[in-house]
Amino acid sequence: MSKLCQNLRQAIQGAGLRDGMTISFHHHLRNGDYVLNMVLQEAAQMGIRDLTVNASSLFDCHRPLIGHIQNEVVTGIITDYAAAGIGRAISEGVLKKPVTFLTHGTRPSNILNGTDHIDIAFLAAPTSDCEGNCSGKYGPSACGSLGYAFADAQRADKVVIISDNLVEYPLCDPSITEDLVDFVVQVDAIGNPAGIVSGTTQMPKDPIALKIAGYAAQAIYASGLLKEGFSFQTGAGGASLAVADSMKRIMLSEKIHGSYALGGITGYMVDMLEAGCFRAIQDVQCFDLEAVRSIRENPGHVEITAAQYASPTAKSNAASHLDVVVLGATQIDTEFNINVHTDSNNLIMGGSGGHTDVAAGAKLTVIVAPLSRARMSIVVDRVFTVSTPGSDVDLLVTQYGIAVNPRRPELKAALKDARLPVADIRELQRTAAALNGPAKPFRPAKERVVAQVFGRNNQLQDLIYGV
Amino acid sequence: MSKLCQNLRQAIQGAGLRDGMTISFHHHLRNGDYVLNMVLQEAAQMGIRDLTVNASSLFDCHRPLIGHIQNEVVTGIITDYAAAGIGRAISEGVLKKPVTFLTHGTRPSNILNGTDHIDIAFLAAPTSDCEGNCSGKYGPSACGSLGYAFADAQRADKVVIISDNLVEYPLCDPSITEDLVDFVVQVDAIGNPAGIVSGTTQMPKDPIALKIAGYAAQAIYASGLLKEGFSFQTGAGGASLAVADSMKRIMLSEKIHGSYALGGITGYMVDMLEAGCFRAIQDVQCFDLEAVRSIRENPGHVEITAAQYASPTAKSNAASHLDVVVLGATQIDTEFNINVHTDSNNLIMGGSGGHTDVAAGAKLTVIVAPLSRARMSIVVDRVFTVSTPGSDVDLLVTQYGIAVNPRRPELKAALKDARLPVADIRELQRTAAALNGPAKPFRPAKERVVAQVFGRNNQLQDLIYGV
Repeated sequence: MSKLCQNLRQAIQGAGLRDGMTISFHHHLRNGDYVLNMVLQEAAQMGIRDLTVNASSLFDCHRPLIGHIQNEVVTGIITDYAAAGIGRAISEGVLKKPVTFLTHGTRPSNILNGTDHIDIAFLAAPTSDCEGNCSGKYGPSACGSLGYAFADAQRADKVVIISDNLVEYPLCDPSITEDLVDFVVQVDAIGNPAGIVSGTTQMPKDPIALKIAGYAAQAIYASGLLKEGFSFQTGAGGASLAVADSMKRIMLSEKIHGSYALGGITGYMVDMLEAGCFRAIQDVQCFDLEAVRSIRENPGHVEITAAQYASPTAKSNAASHLDVVVLGATQIDTEFNINVHTDSNNLIMGGSGGHTDVAAGAKLTVIVAPLSRARMSIVVDRVFTVSTPGSDVDLLVTQYGIAVNPRRPELKAALKDARLPVADIRELQRTAAALNGPAKPFRPAKERVVAQVFGRNNQLQDLIYGV
Repeated sequence: MSKLCQNLRQAIQGAGLRDGMTISFHHHLRNGDYVLNMVLQEAAQMGIRDLTVNASSLFDCHRPLIGHIQNEVVTGIITDYAAAGIGRAISEGVLKKPVTFLTHGTRPSNILNGTDHIDIAFLAAPTSDCEGNCSGKYGPSACGSLGYAFADAQRADKVVIISDNLVEYPLCDPSITEDLVDFVVQVDAIGNPAGIVSGTTQMPKDPIALKIAGYAAQAIYASGLLKEGFSFQTGAGGASLAVADSMKRIMLSEKIHGSYALGGITGYMVDMLEAGCFRAIQDVQCFDLEAVRSIRENPGHVEITAAQYASPTAKSNAASHLDVVVLGATQIDTEFNINVHTDSNNLIMGGSGGHTDVAAGAKLTVIVAPLSRARMSIVVDRVFTVSTPGSDVDLLVTQYGIAVNPRRPELKAALKDARLPVADIRELQRTAAALNGPAKPFRPAKERVVAQVFGRNNQLQDLIYGV
């Protein structure tokens, strides 16, 4: 009996999709993904209703999901991140049941320990053989690491691999292996390469971003953590990349050999690996083509699962060994709580992703952000949504100075010793107010809950209300 | 909290070993393994009693186990194979409870689906980092694949990695990963390299083995399966290796490019990979240093888990895609049932290992054996132990001719067309009797059951009685 299906419909029928089931997807094809849409379209045409979509992230390429919600093909969403287009619809109340927001660490934890059951996982694979040995490293839609797909493959009742690049059995170097796979479907394209990964990582030229990056790198150096064996994660945003650039200069000039870089990986981290700043990259997700090339070619660039990355119930995880992580924020409040879920109008436009996980794990969590965006202070009295609790955040670095969490007096002293512009977070808030003029008073109405935000401990951490 | 323990005692205590628990071991260090003995010795010194040992195989280096059984430190054994020294003690009734014999495929199946629970897995690792990312490919005790250890690591309540080669975190290219590991212990040596793998694979010079091998290769060719995309498994015994040598000659001269070689891997299969006879090796276990070198260096030589290899409850497994497997036998009866558990005195001296699994999976199962051993016919009326049922066996190849299972008349016709010496299995039995003189009538007494042999379907397949 072959696993290879004639078409997606046959695979969906073979897997036994029924009303009320939970189906899952990974987000390695990012804003180029075709797979979530094609599965939901087929399910809709089959007359299936009342599905829960458990997706590691949702991008705006998934906007057709909104129609499926309106038609009640989809009635539940569990995710770690929802981009602004999907997020706005959720905030406007398209879904009757609140969205469940998890993190990149708690999602695999819940799947692996049975808290979140998956009936059928539909997993996009850039290369697969006919038995479902598959990889993200090869093929026209290569996305590199398949880190977020492993838990789904390991625990879903049925696993369907959807690929546009079928190769001879056995695929050598598989990420997900045949023992876990029920069905394989070949399609014309699993995604739009232009949306899957960016061609190159752009370093920002914006002088504010560069100033913030310089402060952040100096603060990390002053913390004493930047030494032999250093481990580091940074995001793909401009300011975060600029920090990496500053770190690289310091590491090369001081001849510091780090241990590993972690997380979603850009070409810039690959540069640092190849320059000898790190011995290894532990990669749960590739952000650009350079990262995809490197994970395919460099034995020091290792694919890890989301559970290895950051599961709170794993016996250990790479995030918990991190020295330093550099992260962004939409809002930060005077308790250092971070909001990365909602914008200044409380519209959903993101989610924790791995933010909450690595902030909890790292010895030093650095938030980099311009003090104001669109004439709004990022420092507020109280964040609209607690994505990452302030107890896990150590520094806020802005172009006007660095605020240190009062829980870290020794860190504050070290930064002052290094003559860095340390400022109280309320002082930064006042600076922003002076620059931007009086803040528009806006408190979201607390009428209808549109999303529940769960923390690292899998307890309800905050609620997001509709607008 | 570090996973790294000061010594084995600390790890055992940390893992919470108690009377009545089940502990597990893999056999990749084969007859050089020190780990099973050191754990049981420590447990005995701690006064622990009534343990069940679930080991993928037991070798004669594990003879101290007999003393632990006598002292009731160990009261239960689950294994896929027990070498003659341990086997004789079992046959002589050292253990009160019958041994459970599984196969290399059913063992991981039972562990992964919860049938066989493991409290603590003690896993020898030739290289590990302090968090338990570990590999068999590197280090002074390198054994190559860790295929039989994965299920244990994935499902045991506690996982202890025991290594003699601790490297910096993170180990790149890990087989078992930190998310699964509770404790790591460094010891002086996990095994005796001389017993772990043999230095080189010796091709037999015995003319009988070469004659059998020639017939077997010709029979495989005549079956029509030896063509582009061919997949193949053979054992490490002399006759099996000689078959591989004959196959290689045919494949090279006929320019046949196979797909994959499977199983326990020797340098001879590596030669075939490097010569282009196969595109890939799927390796659940390395038998010699050449195989260890190859799995470390050759991207086409892939480590697979025991579940990927042959689990009957996996969604598919590599064994089930095999074209041809060449296997040995201690006894074969006129129904083609195979005994690889007991010798001609019904003393335990082996076990199914993967024999039963690949015989079930392959399109063509070829048994190679000299017609007599020590003046005893290997063809008998009824095997003492049904290790592999005759329904999964197609050919018996001896130096006196080839017997074809009556279930395969078309195969018999093909062999006859190829002018191969086809013989009825009863005719071979008579030939052996004529050569050896009258057989000593020996039927084992059926008094005390010392082992239960379970089949691929996890049903009781046969019983082994004490002597």
